[in-house]
Amino acid sequence: MVNLELIKPISRSSPSRIVLLVIDGLGGLPNPQTDKTELETANTPNLDNLANRGTCGLIDPVGPGITPGSAPGHLALFGYDPVSFNIGRGVLEAVGVDFDLQQGDIAARGNFCTVDESGLVTDRRAGRISTDKCAELCQLIDGLVIDKVKFFVCPVKEHRLIVVFRGEGLTSELSDSDPEQVGLAPKVVTALHPEAGRMAGITNRFLAKVKTTLAGYYPANMVLLRGFSQRPQFPTMVEVCKLKPAAIASYPMYRGLAKLVGMEVLETGTSIEDEFVTLKQNYANYDFFFLHIKGTDSAGEDGDFDRKVRIIEDVDRAIADLITIEPDVIVVTGDHSTPALLKGHSWHPVPILLYSKWCRPDKVTEFSESACVSGGLGRFPATQIMPLAMANALKLNKFGA
Amino acid sequence: MVNLELIKPISRSSPSRIVLLVIDGLGGLPNPQTDKTELETANTPNLDNLANRGTCGLIDPVGPGITPGSAPGHLALFGYDPVSFNIGRGVLEAVGVDFDLQQGDIAARGNFCTVDESGLVTDRRAGRISTDKCAELCQLIDGLVIDKVKFFVCPVKEHRLIVVFRGEGLTSELSDSDPEQVGLAPKVVTALHPEAGRMAGITNRFLAKVKTTLAGYYPANMVLLRGFSQRPQFPTMVEVCKLKPAAIASYPMYRGLAKLVGMEVLETGTSIEDEFVTLKQNYANYDFFFLHIKGTDSAGEDGDFDRKVRIIEDVDRAIADLITIEPDVIVVTGDHSTPALLKGHSWHPVPILLYSKWCRPDKVTEFSESACVSGGLGRFPATQIMPLAMANALKLNKFGA
Repeated sequence: MVNLELIKPISRSSPSRIVLLVIDGLGGLPNPQTDKTELETANTPNLDNLANRGTCGLIDPVGPGITPGSAPGHLALFGYDPVSFNIGRGVLEAVGVDFDLQQGDIAARGNFCTVDESGLVTDRRAGRISTDKCAELCQLIDGLVIDKVKFFVCPVKEHRLIVVFRGEGLTSELSDSDPEQVGLAPKVVTALHPEAGRMAGITNRFLAKVKTTLAGYYPANMVLLRGFSQRPQFPTMVEVCKLKPAAIASYPMYRGLAKLVGMEVLETGTSIEDEFVTLKQNYANYDFFFLHIKGTDSAGEDGDFDRKVRIIEDVDRAIADLITIEPDVIVVTGDHSTPALLKGHSWHPVPILLYSKWCRPDKVTEFSESACVSGGLGRFPATQIMPLAMANALKLNKFGA
Repeated sequence: MVNLELIKPISRSSPSRIVLLVIDGLGGLPNPQTDKTELETANTPNLDNLANRGTCGLIDPVGPGITPGSAPGHLALFGYDPVSFNIGRGVLEAVGVDFDLQQGDIAARGNFCTVDESGLVTDRRAGRISTDKCAELCQLIDGLVIDKVKFFVCPVKEHRLIVVFRGEGLTSELSDSDPEQVGLAPKVVTALHPEAGRMAGITNRFLAKVKTTLAGYYPANMVLLRGFSQRPQFPTMVEVCKLKPAAIASYPMYRGLAKLVGMEVLETGTSIEDEFVTLKQNYANYDFFFLHIKGTDSAGEDGDFDRKVRIIEDVDRAIADLITIEPDVIVVTGDHSTPALLKGHSWHPVPILLYSKWCRPDKVTEFSESACVSGGLGRFPATQIMPLAMANALKLNKFGA
């Protein structure tokens, strides 16, 4: 918060260009057989070259010991304190299916579930119906209007869906309808704030309507809702940093997060090469590019050390081309670590390299966790990346006289 | 803020002495021909000796990526959070000409300007009149009293001046009179806060009086004012740190900043040697010395790499003598970087060395940007220097039981 308030009055627009390359889940842990992490195992001549000419360090996306989810991890990279700027579960899920949330919208996560004749939940996932089935059922309950509030229902994956409420004066202070266990009836949604009474009533009327509509669709004969949340009102990167920012990401959640902070989302393909081609094609039209690589995180989550290594090498090859177009500032890092050994996100700090004509080079000659420990950037909160990148692009005026 | 609140209850007075040597704009960037910064190029046996026996690191005066002005840079060195403790433009300008601002005073920056017969500004700098002419004209409008408010008018340089308002219940919430462009009339000063109404009225009466008085002094026939601000009420280093602090600086702005935090300003000459002699002569009477070297910053601003190198070497020679009087704690750092390559202040972290009998030495054997990356102090906010220096002088009690 202080960060953005500090930046806003001193940021200036200029033709220089920044590329923020986010290799999702980049940081790792050493393979016990080789004592080398995924990044240290990968052959990365281009990243090493950038590290050698630039300056390196380690970032904490949220804080030491804190394992970040994808949303806080990315918000921190974009300069937003991930603790103050929280994104509700419902909103995150909506953003994750590219739903175009508008100001004032309320979003909730939902499950199709099975209820028995007395209305008790017997399966919270409705036998994990297929995504196609989910989409078909969503259409039955999509578009309802109750008391001038419109309900959008969209499939996510298998039994999962989102419900978005659009209307005047909505609020998200509602209790969940999901009882979180079988053998109980779906809960009546209640207001957690005096002003949420109308909203609770509308939601319960919606759920009653859903129950009637789905009655014949066993096992998916009811919906459970949780995580009601409102689209947050973030100051955008356009306002704060005076940038014209673009996002290149093949996964919807990252496109959605970028949209929440005011980036323009560019159409792109699904491969790493596609993403870099999109950057090159749009290079003239923006001055900040967020390019997101998903594969490294997925490989880490799968515990596939070698696949993560290969994807890092793919990224390295793509970077050779990026270097030839000479962006003024190149930042390469991750939103968190995803060590294959842990098969999930972790709290380990993430390597970062920053290259610009004006950086002060350090003695690091390769891009790796162990080398970055001795880097000139030191270990620092990820929220400081944007001020650093902007300074190196000469897009920040002096603070104070 | 938190910093000072933490320190105040645990600080104690003691005979030990701290010297804070600020080499203005110390940090640099490598010369492309040699890959060495100004500090790395300079031959500095005495600083290297201190670095070898002491502990080193890198400081961020305001934060990563933020280029500090001189005021925030110094406030941070003195232990004050430079974002919370902001100094207005008018006050800084007054402080910069050694004007003895008192509690409650309001200061504004001013320009002599030229207005035509219909009162429109034709030259915002009155043809850049000489400093002597400025001083002469200031006398004509100095000392006016309007509604019990006294106006002090002092020359700065060329067409620039300051106006200080002294009286009861003054406030600085005023709009500027400077239209910031030619072809417009000077603006009527308005109250930016309901309580500033009287103040706005008095200011406009002052400006009307100035216009009449200067009518025959073309091209300097009017004054424009901007940056109205009040002398901030800082807790002093005397209260917070229980120090008896002295400032040795040949440039007025740094003397003024030191005065704002409660230091006593010592008379000194203009050379580096003069400043060190002043320290030695006054060594018995104070327990904290802020010694300011200006030349390095000026050389950096001029883009003169070699001159900056030479001045660092001059400082190094002077330090030999300082070491012989054995201050309990010696801190050497800068208020920001001023790389000759950038010809201006920059965001790069600043090398720091701290020597005391009680520091924990690290492996750094020379005082340089690249060596300090691996120093025992790590990379840290400049506001932490004062607690560190006081701890090493055994001037801080244990926190908590």
